Order: sequence, then structure tokens, then C-alpha cells
Amino acid sequence: MTKPLTLAIFQSMMPGGTAYGSWRHPENTAPDYLDVDHWVSLGKKLDAAGFDFLFFADAYGSPDTDDRFFDIRIKDAGIGAADPLVVVSAIAAATSKLGIVVTASTTTEKPQSLTRRYATLDHLTKGRIGWNIVTGSGQAASARLFGEAMIPHDERYLIAEDHIQLSLKLWEQSWDDGAILLDRAAGVYADPSKIHDIHHDGPYFKADGFLTVPPSPQRTPLLLQAGTSGPGRDFAAKYAEAVFLAGGDAKHVAANIADIRERAERYGRPADSIKFLVGVGFITAPTTEEAQAKRGEMLSFSTVESAAAFYATLTGIDLLALDRTKPLGDVKTEQGQSGVERFSGADGVPPATVGEILEDYRRNGVNGSIFVGDPSTVADQIEEFIELTGADGFAIQPYLVPGTYDDFIELLIPELRSRGLMREQPEGSTLREHLFGEGRKRLPREHAGAQLQTPVS
Amino acid sequence: MTKPLTLAIFQSMMPGGTAYGSWRHPENTAPDYLDVDHWVSLGKKLDAAGFDFLFFADAYGSPDTDDRFFDIRIKDAGIGAADPLVVVSAIAAATSKLGIVVTASTTTEKPQSLTRRYATLDHLTKGRIGWNIVTGSGQAASARLFGEAMIPHDERYLIAEDHIQLSLKLWEQSWDDGAILLDRAAGVYADPSKIHDIHHDGPYFKADGFLTVPPSPQRTPLLLQAGTSGPGRDFAAKYAEAVFLAGGDAKHVAANIADIRERAERYGRPADSIKFLVGVGFITAPTTEEAQAKRGEMLSFSTVESAAAFYATLTGIDLLALDRTKPLGDVKTEQGQSGVERFSGADGVPPATVGEILEDYRRNGVNGSIFVGDPSTVADQIEEFIELTGADGFAIQPYLVPGTYDDFIELLIPELRSRGLMREQPEGSTLREHLFGEGRKRLPREHAGAQLQTPVS
Repeated sequence: MTKPLTLAIFQSMMPGGTAYGSWRHPENTAPDYLDVDHWVSLGKKLDAAGFDFLFFADAYGSPDTDDRFFDIRIKDAGIGAADPLVVVSAIAAATSKLGIVVTASTTTEKPQSLTRRYATLDHLTKGRIGWNIVTGSGQAASARLFGEAMIPHDERYLIAEDHIQLSLKLWEQSWDDGAILLDRAAGVYADPSKIHDIHHDGPYFKADGFLTVPPSPQRTPLLLQAGTSGPGRDFAAKYAEAVFLAGGDAKHVAANIADIRERAERYGRPADSIKFLVGVGFITAPTTEEAQAKRGEMLSFSTVESAAAFYATLTGIDLLALDRTKPLGDVKTEQGQSGVERFSGADGVPPATVGEILEDYRRNGVNGSIFVGDPSTVADQIEEFIELTGADGFAIQPYLVPGTYDDFIELLIPELRSRGLMREQPEGSTLREHLFGEGRKRLPREHAGAQLQTPVS
Repeated sequence: MTKPLTLAIFQSMMPGGTAYGSWRHPENTAPDYLDVDHWVSLGKKLDAAGFDFLFFADAYGSPDTDDRFFDIRIKDAGIGAADPLVVVSAIAAATSKLGIVVTASTTTEKPQSLTRRYATLDHLTKGRIGWNIVTGSGQAASARLFGEAMIPHDERYLIAEDHIQLSLKLWEQSWDDGAILLDRAAGVYADPSKIHDIHHDGPYFKADGFLTVPPSPQRTPLLLQAGTSGPGRDFAAKYAEAVFLAGGDAKHVAANIADIRERAERYGRPADSIKFLVGVGFITAPTTEEAQAKRGEMLSFSTVESAAAFYATLTGIDLLALDRTKPLGDVKTEQGQSGVERFSGADGVPPATVGEILEDYRRNGVNGSIFVGDPSTVADQIEEFIELTGADGFAIQPYLVPGTYDDFIELLIPELRSRGLMREQPEGSTLREHLFGEGRKRLPREHAGAQLQTPVS
């Protein structure tokens, strides 16, 4: 049975994007990322086309292994990260349906200020904001910048657990429904008995106060997660409403999805309460030959050194210093990032060699799969991938901005709609409704956040 | 000699504004503050009229003295603070000249993330962003919310000193001019030799890394400051490019301005390197009689209890519990906020009684002076106040949104322009140029931040 895909657009507020060197293409406007009109115009295009949401990756990091990688990343336009959270309202003001998801780290951000920012944005977007929860990315450099000790991967998930518990309490428990009266005649803006202090005394965060922002359409923003390490999967199973996975081998993706769905059920959540989106590139053209020519042009910008520098940024591991003919093996990553793990550990998938990993990063960028061909060929690839993996949709990784989206909109969308794979417009008005259907503006009853809604006094 | 005023618009992202109870007026749109269109439409109006900038006050706090004040503040629409930083880009996208200043606390925010946010916004606004530096506001409740110990007032200025030093290094030293090459043919986005790690090892903040955002038009946002305690004045004298003062007694304002100018000179800065803006309300109408009727209507919404609750929010002091016939005397405020001190300490100004303070807050709101009359009368009051105080302009406190601004624009601006008190449009394109003239996009040489620009390696 065909069901419509959930379709997100993958972006970062960086000059270089996710496809190495593609900024060098004369038609790529990605280097205009510091101009607000760049985002407003992109937002309008995506909104009109009916995509579910625009997703912003984010990290404070830069490669920390070696000066050589630092230099490569700078030349590659892989440095220059700006803060995506502050561009959201400009996009929101120019669009009507498009959701906007922004990454923020539970290690870097305090729950008290993070909840206020997202709650404000949930108002300004009229319920179209989502939070991609990360525990750190480019962590070594980020820790250095923040003058903090490097926190071990598993402890970061303990911090994340405490952070999300406090954040959910602040969003869900601070204000009862109906607290705002706006009674001008009586001079009563809100009912004080319906506003509650949160008392939280966790291992990492303490709070005694309430979220000052009145309840927003979604209260808790749509919660997304990307890590697929053990603790990452467990965190996703408990809290995430959408999970990003890197593309690549379909069996590996399928195994990850099945595992997280199973864990979710153990937390009392229905298996379909999480949408799985796979990071994929799309290169399409009227004919497959033209699409392959575009693919070749894109690869001409991409080097093994760039791929290694990017991998080092994500993981702290210098692949160029290792034997390319052997598997990565026991080299420990600092991250547990999904990008790192797209080769590791799924049953029946042989471990990739260092050389294969390098070539895969060079060819496929951060997200692991690129579908190439005329619209019908690509739509076939999509259907097959969905069938094999059980994924719900894609996070579309651009090779050109806005070229990738123009091709997708003009060529692929008509094909997808004719096959029942894409709606005319997202469902409902809020981002949560786009993913789960009209009427589901708030967290569902079985979610840990909704279960915190017991009134407190 | 007449010189044009610097004119700012005072706002907070709150339902109630600064004039107690004015949200109850049926024409006040202030309660729409969570709607992005409210801000876009206000921004467009102010931009077209030629104001220098829109200023957002901000605080996480709520009154912490007493449940009764908490209830009053909620009924008064004095609670509901959202995050103004995330609405800036929507306003910026819809305007061309208007500066936007946002308050943020050196106690709550980390320099590493704060500098990235403001640098991103300086790009998105094309150089129109400013930072109003506070060390805490509503500090007791904010500390409770953040689960932190209450930090003594003077120590907060030590934190602020360390914070601004690191922030200035990140903005001014991370990237040399000309670092961005954007050479698509050669595949060189930036020159790695022109990007430098900052090594900061201060008493409160440590960092080893660089600001990831490429240099923005102003690099350092325009720096503003509001506190007029001893350490506050010293901080302002060293770093501020504009200082907000509460209105009220002109002699008191004049003494504050003269003192800070003198301190600035001791830091090697010209006396005119700081612009002094006084928080003032304007109620104007075609005739003075009509203006006074508006003033009466506004006062009808305002009670002593509201004023006391607001004062408690700022200071932690319950004026209602004190003898109204006696001076405030030695009761220690937690804050050193300008609003608190508009009665304290200037030579020749007798100490106000508790009752006088209450009545002043009830009548004049947070900022202390309201000019009432027909356009010519108000313009006379303005000229006299400027003459007496040496101030450079005003932060205009609304009683009605957008009514106050409509009246100002339609009635007062023609009068001000005819007297040479207001330009047709702000000077230059960046906020710093609006205040200091075309060409001054960056911090001037004598500023502590510019002196940090010595290249590091």
C-alpha cells in the first residue's frame, strides 16, 4: 500500500553545504547563506511546493585533529557556521505551511533558555517549529571553544536525559490550558492559579520557576533525533517523533529502523509513533543520461582529502593516517554520529575498509545515498528503498541550492504525486500535524512528555 | 546649536508593555506580541518614519517577593516574556534602515553562543544589530529558574567584564579582513592563515577556538548599557556606545550623564563617544487638551498595586510593606537598575519618599518622564530637557501600540524636523553609523574592543 512520504529539506547555515565542493558550481547560491533574502526566497519556494519541513543541521565545531584538516575545511567552505535559530522568523513570516526544524545541543544549551527560544518560535511560526536534539557535534572543537572538558559520549546522553525532562516539564506543565483570559474590561490578562512553578532537581540541571512564554500551538516543538549509537537509539525510542538516519546500505538502514521501533514499543509507544527520514541526495534531469552528467560534474568538485577532513570534523578520526585496505575496526569515535556509523554493525553487512569509507564520503557526502536518474527511474529507486527499509520519507540533501530543489519540484514531484507518494500540501497547520495527521497538534498521550502533564501546584 | 536627536523605540516582547494596564485599552495591539506579523508591521512603520532603532528590553524574571505580587503581575499582563532575539530576522527582512537592539544578560548567556547569535544577526540585518548588555534583571527569579545561586550585584559586573572581553576578542580577532576569498575556480572559500583561535583564560570564562561566523558589517554589534550603579557606570564608560537612562528629574539625569562622560574620558574615550538616550513617554494630540485627556485615560488603567508589583520585579523590594512617608533609605536593591535609581543620590535632589516613588512609578512607568501636549508644546519640552541634561535623544516608551508611534509620526515628527531635531532618514546603513555618522561601521580606534584587534597567531 502506497502512503505519502514525509519530505524534509536538509540545510545547514554554512557556505559549503553537504556535498563537498558543490559551492564552487557557479549556479550554487549556498555561499549567500548570510543574506536573509537567500532564506526567505528558499523558504517560499519550498512552501509553495508542499514540502513538510526545512531542516537545519548545526554544530559549533571545526576539525580538531590536525592543522591540515582545518585548512582543508576552510578552503572547502566547511567552516563559517552561523546560528540557524535566528533566521527562522524571517522564513516563517514569508511562508504559511512549511515546518522549520533547528538543531540544538543539550550539552551546549541550557533548558531554561532553550525552551523559551523554541516556545517563542512555536508562536512566531504558528506551530511549525521542531527541535533536532543533539548531544554534541564536532564535540572536541566545541568543548575547546566553550572551555569545557570533553564529555564522554555516554555521559552526554545522561545530560540529554536530564535536559529533556526539564524541558518537557517547562513546556507541558508551566501553563494550564485556558490560563490566558485577555479580559480587558476586568483587567485580567491571565489566571494566576493556572500558572505553575516547575521544581526540577536533576543530576545536571536544577530549576525552580516556570516557562514565561504562554502555551504555543504545539507546546513542545516536534522532537527529532539523529544519533544511532546505543544510547542514541534508546533516547530516540523514548522521546523522538522523527529520526534522521544516514542513507547507504538499505539492510543497515532497515535494521536501525526496526531496532528503534522495537525499543519505542518497550517504552509503551506504538511502532508508528516515530517517522524515519533517510538523508539522501537526488540528482534528476529529463533523461538519466543528463542526470548522470550532473552527477559527474558534482563529483569533479569532491576530493578524498575533503571527505577525510569532513569525517575528522564529525568524529575526530584521521582516516588518511590509517591503512586504507583494512576495516576501521576498533578506532573509537568521539561521537556516535549517524554519519559515522552507516557502515558499522548491522547484521550481515561486512565491515567497510577505510578506503571504502573515504570513497563513500567522497561520493555521497554526509548522508550516504544519492539517487540519480530521470524522474521515473528515481521514483522507482525511492519506492524500492522505502520498501526495503520501512522508512517514512527523506531528508533531501542538496548538491546545488536552489538547483536541487528546482529539479525536484519541476521533475520529480509530478511523478511522485502521480504515484501517490506526495501530498498536494502537508496535512494540518502545525508541523506535528504534517507528520501525524490533522488534529495532532500536541504530543500524543503515550509520549513521555505528555505523561508529565499531570497538573502540579 | 541644534543637532538631530537619536530616536529609539522602547519595546519588550511582553503582553503588557511598559505603561501599566495600557494593554486594557481596546486599541492596544501589544497583546498580539506572539504574532510575527505584529512585529513585521511595527518594524515597517518605524523604518518608514526614520527612527534610528527598535529596542527590546528583556528579562527571564518574575516577581519573587510574594505570591500577591506574582498574581498582580500576571493579571496586569506583566508576565509572558518571550525571546526577542528570535524575532529580529523577520523584522530585518521587512525593513531597510531600522536598527534593532536586543537585551541579553552576561550572567545568563555564554559568550561563545551569544557572539555567534549576534554575529549571525549582524549579517541578517546587514549591520543593524545592537546588544544591550545587562548583568541580570529580575535577578532573583531568574537565578531560581536557572537553579543558580543569586550572584551579588558587584560580582555580576566582574562576570560581565570577563564576558565582554572574551566576546570582543571573538568578534574582533577571529577573522582578519579579507579572509573570505570565495574563489570558486581555485576552490578556496577562505584563507586559513587569516582565521585565528582565541585563547582566553579569564576568571569566569575560558575559550580556545574562534567565532565560526565570518566578519559581519559591524563585527561587534553596537554596544548599549543601562545600569547606572557605580560598577554599571564604569562598565558603560569603558564599553558602551549608547547608554539608556531613566527619565525623571533633569538634574539627576544630567549628573549621571556628566559622570559617565567623565569616566569615559578616563578610559581614553572622547566625551561624545557615548550617546545618552533617556526613556520617556510621549502623549501628543492636535491640542494639549486632547493630549491631557489621553493621559488621563492611560492613568485610569494604572494602580499603586501594579506599580509596586513592577517595582518588586525589578528590585525584589516590597514598597507596600514600607512606611510611605519616609525615604527609601538604606533598603538594598538587588539590582542597581536605572529604574530603581532615578531618585537616588544626585547632588541637590532630595531623597524621595516611598509614597513618591510609588506614585511616580504609577504615573510614569518604568522610564520616568512623560511629555504631554500638542506637538509644539512637546517639542518645547524636548528641547528644554535636552538643554538641561546634555542627552542625545530618547527611548520612546509606548502607552499604546501602535497608537503612540502613530501620534509621534503624524504629529510630532513634522514639528521635530522643522526644528532640525530629526533627520529624514538615519545616517549610513549600519546602526553604528546611524548614531555616529556615515563611515563608522566598526568600533572606533579608542574603544577597548578595537584595541584588542592586534593580530594574534
